[in-house]
Amino acid sequence: ADVKKIAVIAGDGIGPEVVAEAEKVLKRTEELFGYQFETEHALFGGIAIDEKGTPLPEETLKVCQSADAVLLGAVGGPKWDNNSKELRPETGLLGIRKALGLFSNIRPAFIFDCLKEASTLKPEVLEGTDLIVVRELTGGIYFGEKFRRETANGQEAVDTCAYNVTEIERIARQAFEIAQTRRKKLASVDKANVLETSRLWRETVNRIAVDYPDVELEHVLVDNCAMQLLRRPSSFDVIVTENMFGDILSDEAAMLTGSIGMLASASLGEGAFGLYEPVHGSAPDIAGQGISNPIATILSVALMFRLTFGYHEAADSIERAVKEVLDAGHRTGDIAVDKSTAIGTLAMGQLIVDAM
Amino acid sequence: ADVKKIAVIAGDGIGPEVVAEAEKVLKRTEELFGYQFETEHALFGGIAIDEKGTPLPEETLKVCQSADAVLLGAVGGPKWDNNSKELRPETGLLGIRKALGLFSNIRPAFIFDCLKEASTLKPEVLEGTDLIVVRELTGGIYFGEKFRRETANGQEAVDTCAYNVTEIERIARQAFEIAQTRRKKLASVDKANVLETSRLWRETVNRIAVDYPDVELEHVLVDNCAMQLLRRPSSFDVIVTENMFGDILSDEAAMLTGSIGMLASASLGEGAFGLYEPVHGSAPDIAGQGISNPIATILSVALMFRLTFGYHEAADSIERAVKEVLDAGHRTGDIAVDKSTAIGTLAMGQLIVDAM
Ligand SMILES: CC(C)[C@H](C(=O)O)[C@@H](O)C(=O)O
Ligand SMILES: CC(C)[C@H](C(=O)O)[C@@H](O)C(=O)O
Repeated sequence: ADVKKIAVIAGDGIGPEVVAEAEKVLKRTEELFGYQFETEHALFGGIAIDEKGTPLPEETLKVCQSADAVLLGAVGGPKWDNNSKELRPETGLLGIRKALGLFSNIRPAFIFDCLKEASTLKPEVLEGTDLIVVRELTGGIYFGEKFRRETANGQEAVDTCAYNVTEIERIARQAFEIAQTRRKKLASVDKANVLETSRLWRETVNRIAVDYPDVELEHVLVDNCAMQLLRRPSSFDVIVTENMFGDILSDEAAMLTGSIGMLASASLGEGAFGLYEPVHGSAPDIAGQGISNPIATILSVALMFRLTFGYHEAADSIERAVKEVLDAGHRTGDIAVDKSTAIGTLAMGQLIVDAM
Repeated sequence: ADVKKIAVIAGDGIGPEVVAEAEKVLKRTEELFGYQFETEHALFGGIAIDEKGTPLPEETLKVCQSADAVLLGAVGGPKWDNNSKELRPETGLLGIRKALGLFSNIRPAFIFDCLKEASTLKPEVLEGTDLIVVRELTGGIYFGEKFRRETANGQEAVDTCAYNVTEIERIARQAFEIAQTRRKKLASVDKANVLETSRLWRETVNRIAVDYPDVELEHVLVDNCAMQLLRRPSSFDVIVTENMFGDILSDEAAMLTGSIGMLASASLGEGAFGLYEPVHGSAPDIAGQGISNPIATILSVALMFRLTFGYHEAADSIERAVKEVLDAGHRTGDIAVDKSTAIGTLAMGQLIVDAM
């Protein structure tokens, strides 16, 4: 049989709790659909710093490289925030993205009907919001040369933002292709009135757009996009942008849905391989209390099924189960209107597994 | 008598219309308070490209340099969007900021009570929102070295982001000082978990924070700030950040108030000199129809009175007049709920002048 290898990185904070529920969903999928998964756990982030002295141990990278997909909980926490650069969880995150060639970060942001009220936006503005931010993940100012030097005006710090045509082309093509499977609208976000990288970005996107005549392309300046996401969120379909802008805009987009505890993300490379994780962070403040919301991580499994394995039926089953459980009124504390009726991580996980 | 010289740059699109109303407010201030203003008009932006072949003619710079303050309408429009870099209005904007040493851009974002409904955010979330974004304006990736080069992966574009201690100190001190006159809370926004410039930013802000013990300082990562502005806008008082982040966050902040047609901004240097302009753009789609909203430009005059001239009483008079006119139900099209009752630019300007 075709056994799929999944590297499981629980990470820090609520990571282990939410990942545990997602693993139950994997198990249930085996029973229901006859698929076979082999999971291998690996240390990453803060816990890897504590136990191995580095956020991204060699073994972890090997486990990921020999797997078909990676499921990641969350990394980071105040404990490691003041560490030197090499001993910070984020450094592991940037390292794993680069090492695995995950140049594309895909973050769907949509509204769960039953959670509309959770947003700070008016329901009528949100109505119909269903967008995907496609963020370039291994280039730009994140990975350019960084240094300090002495000047007449005191120390100076320098970051370099660079993009080449190949990097822009591959992410743009992916975004066009995703748009083709959806409402066929692509917003390419840049700051072409100021940045040279943005001008190359725009030229390149325009050049390859001719290969996707069915997709309606608009160019939006990043500052304007930050506004338009608030003014007309439902008008966006797919948004493609460079690493730093994508970091900011995808968080804004996720937050405006009010469903940030529910959103999954995928980081992809050239082939089917992908790393899947919830959009939310490690929430150290509530870790270990069994009250965190496992839904985003469970939906990350569904996304893995779709994008890496092509197990659409199983993905449907998970997504339907989540909807059913929510429609029946079950809520974890983060999404409960009446906190006194909130259920815990385990209970939510079990309800979803049962509903599959 | 002490004659104040004001360079007036009407600019493009609706710029000339809204600036004309602001000039009536200047005139009325002379009558009411006995101040004297000498205004000198100068070409800038698209119109300067058309008439002088450059967005920032030498004469314009001279007029500004010999003035006590600059009042700017708006620049830009589709007509010049595809021009080469030297012939674009934005290039003039960056040039004037640098040439006049305007290292600080101050953008208050607050809610006009009678316009609460204009926001896409829920009124209860907006309640009490009153923040100022202090954006560094002459450094960072906007002004760093930019170039292209050939690589094995096709052309590569490079932008350089640099900050030195002196640049960070002066903007941070200004932000701390503004916070001292308000609710004494400062959020410094950076991406210190990734960028070297952000690490220097954070170190420097922390170092000078000891001089402002009465101000409560928090560091917020830029992606998190984009979220928190949506989740808890009223919890922010003063936000200080670097040029590119400030561009994005100040637009997000302005839009969430729902009052973008009403917001004024100031760009300041070392002394009292400042450039004042509405936050909104040149709106070429409605230019020349006499329907644009002059309030943001009129409030820019009030801001000039406060920050450059210290004419607080006159500033109060303008702000009170605007409030009165709005409370009486008068609206331009952009802020009218019932568009059929909207009044034009001239009528709105006159009402405010009369109410002063
Ligand atoms: C932790 C940080 C380095 C990371 C990023 O900026 O990419 C995070 O914000 C994210 O979006 O995954
Ligand atoms: C027009 C553009 C160069 C400018 C900027 O990015 O600074 C504008 O967006 C602004 O905020 O004043």
